[in-house]
Amino acid sequence: MEDVITLDYGSGGGKTSKLISDLILPLINKDHEKTGALCDGAVLDILKGTGDGNQRLVFSTDSFVVDPRFFPGGDIGKLSVCGTVNDLAMMGAEPAYLSLSFIIEEGFSAEELKTIAMSIGRTAKEAGVRIVTGDTKVVDRGRGDGIYINTSGIGFVDSDLFPEGYSLKPENICAGDSVIVSGTVGDHGTAVMLARNPEFGMGGGEGSDMLLSDCAPLNREALALARGLGKDLRVMRDPTRGGLATALNEFVEDRQDVGIEILEKEIPISDTVRSICDILGLDPLYCACEGRLIAVVSGECEDRALSILKREPHGSGAAVIGHVTEKTPGRLVIRTVLGTGRIAVKLSGAQLPRIC
Amino acid sequence: MEDVITLDYGSGGGKTSKLISDLILPLINKDHEKTGALCDGAVLDILKGTGDGNQRLVFSTDSFVVDPRFFPGGDIGKLSVCGTVNDLAMMGAEPAYLSLSFIIEEGFSAEELKTIAMSIGRTAKEAGVRIVTGDTKVVDRGRGDGIYINTSGIGFVDSDLFPEGYSLKPENICAGDSVIVSGTVGDHGTAVMLARNPEFGMGGGEGSDMLLSDCAPLNREALALARGLGKDLRVMRDPTRGGLATALNEFVEDRQDVGIEILEKEIPISDTVRSICDILGLDPLYCACEGRLIAVVSGECEDRALSILKREPHGSGAAVIGHVTEKTPGRLVIRTVLGTGRIAVKLSGAQLPRIC
Repeated sequence: MEDVITLDYGSGGGKTSKLISDLILPLINKDHEKTGALCDGAVLDILKGTGDGNQRLVFSTDSFVVDPRFFPGGDIGKLSVCGTVNDLAMMGAEPAYLSLSFIIEEGFSAEELKTIAMSIGRTAKEAGVRIVTGDTKVVDRGRGDGIYINTSGIGFVDSDLFPEGYSLKPENICAGDSVIVSGTVGDHGTAVMLARNPEFGMGGGEGSDMLLSDCAPLNREALALARGLGKDLRVMRDPTRGGLATALNEFVEDRQDVGIEILEKEIPISDTVRSICDILGLDPLYCACEGRLIAVVSGECEDRALSILKREPHGSGAAVIGHVTEKTPGRLVIRTVLGTGRIAVKLSGAQLPRIC
Repeated sequence: MEDVITLDYGSGGGKTSKLISDLILPLINKDHEKTGALCDGAVLDILKGTGDGNQRLVFSTDSFVVDPRFFPGGDIGKLSVCGTVNDLAMMGAEPAYLSLSFIIEEGFSAEELKTIAMSIGRTAKEAGVRIVTGDTKVVDRGRGDGIYINTSGIGFVDSDLFPEGYSLKPENICAGDSVIVSGTVGDHGTAVMLARNPEFGMGGGEGSDMLLSDCAPLNREALALARGLGKDLRVMRDPTRGGLATALNEFVEDRQDVGIEILEKEIPISDTVRSICDILGLDPLYCACEGRLIAVVSGECEDRALSILKREPHGSGAAVIGHVTEKTPGRLVIRTVLGTGRIAVKLSGAQLPRIC
């Protein structure tokens, strides 16, 4: 095939088939001979049924427009798998199936598409999800930005994981609960921002100080928490666009009875992220993460939750950062190292557009 | 909110919430107060279970980049619901849930977004599907083309519809089967092409000759066929990009034993489409449909299939157009009105880019 993607590859005819069968499929799905092509639709088994009729399905979608497409620690392909896998996992579901849809700009490099497809395949394998259906569109030059990717995902909630209709949601949060984050915050947003602005001369270099995006699939971490804590796990969220502060706000914004107080000194932030944010006037609490989860758990379980997370590959930096309190209903308050409290509102506009 | 969509609306923060809750949700989903916002994911019931463990789920995805966004008979919103609903329906599934993801170009008109959201809501209602999860991204001006939409869909195959593991697929096709199309072909492709080139001065005007896209949800028609024919229904397909000829080719391209012969004079093509295609040198058999289905059914059942289709809202123009034959294995042959046969191959490149 050609070195660049032309409009013909979006025709739905022979060239589209060739692009999918020759370039994309072998890279994302090693056993594609067995699973068949990424057809218009896939017939799937409903997994994990224990036959008690209470099984639940979780469905999620995300489009990815990150700029630049490659950044330290990840790329748009890895991100597009992690983003949807994590959305499913945050709801207590085991991610099972992904769809994959490309909007490619005419003239896009076939080599780069291969690299992205490989990254998608590798990440799907790590997360244990199967890409089962797909679509490819090509738009004329100047009407896109290289490549945009949509993934949608289906996961299943084990019917014995949360019995009696319990599901993870902010309404479960009670006073006295603990707020846990699985690792340092703001790495992804800051890494993308540096990749976008190489003239800052920070990050991007080799060595121990190199800042990497945290981009990672969190289904192992999330399921371990759900299995280990049951109803003591109240809610989980991956703080992507809008960061930690926006996600925590969303947990309590509709509550008249409780708010969240977090302790500034307990929030894990890498020195690199902290100094870059200082210089650029960004607040790391609003910078996107793509491989971190926030969990609210019952106060008695915080140690157990921490030790569960620390056993998993992407949870080694887990920390308790605060508590749910009746003192500040509906609010997120950040208690500074000086002991003062400041209200942290939701992000309104864009701190950093096209971060995912 | 502002009259145009700015990058802030893609931030994931307060403005994104506002866009979704104030503009999009009320228009696509009248009972959104009950179903909650289009969150990162939706927890769903698995429908139609009869408890025998053979229930199957169908999953499909499509991105829509049609140019122009509004065309006689439809718009990108209607198309984005129909496209995914039809992919599910062609596999014998009852479409149940859709995801909805927007990639909006900075500066896009909020009013136009409303119109599109309304169209999505109306079409979802007609098709009987629920939009349950969504995502909105905004890209900088010049990096998109107004709006691109992805929908993914979940449908369920009734476990008593096709017992014993039977599923609709091209491999089911046998010699002697009949090929049926549910109505005139090429209307969508031709209508979009005219809308894109108003200088041709054809179509787009008021009156009886106005050419409309056939864009429509086909789940009623498809399910009626599946319920009425059982295993006598071999395979269905909606001939979108690449049109009728490409879809029929895909049915038999891997077969050593059978091919398809269609009779040119039996193919329903409107006079308007025929004359426009004549003038412009297009072949209507390769023009996209977005509201037509092709069904291959056992020869004995062709009359029953026709009468089933004709009872449904989008099947009144159904016709038998040809048969499966051992004479031309692996090939689609079109028998002309003069009695000669010509081999019609798959579309290779783009006859008309960005048709859906």
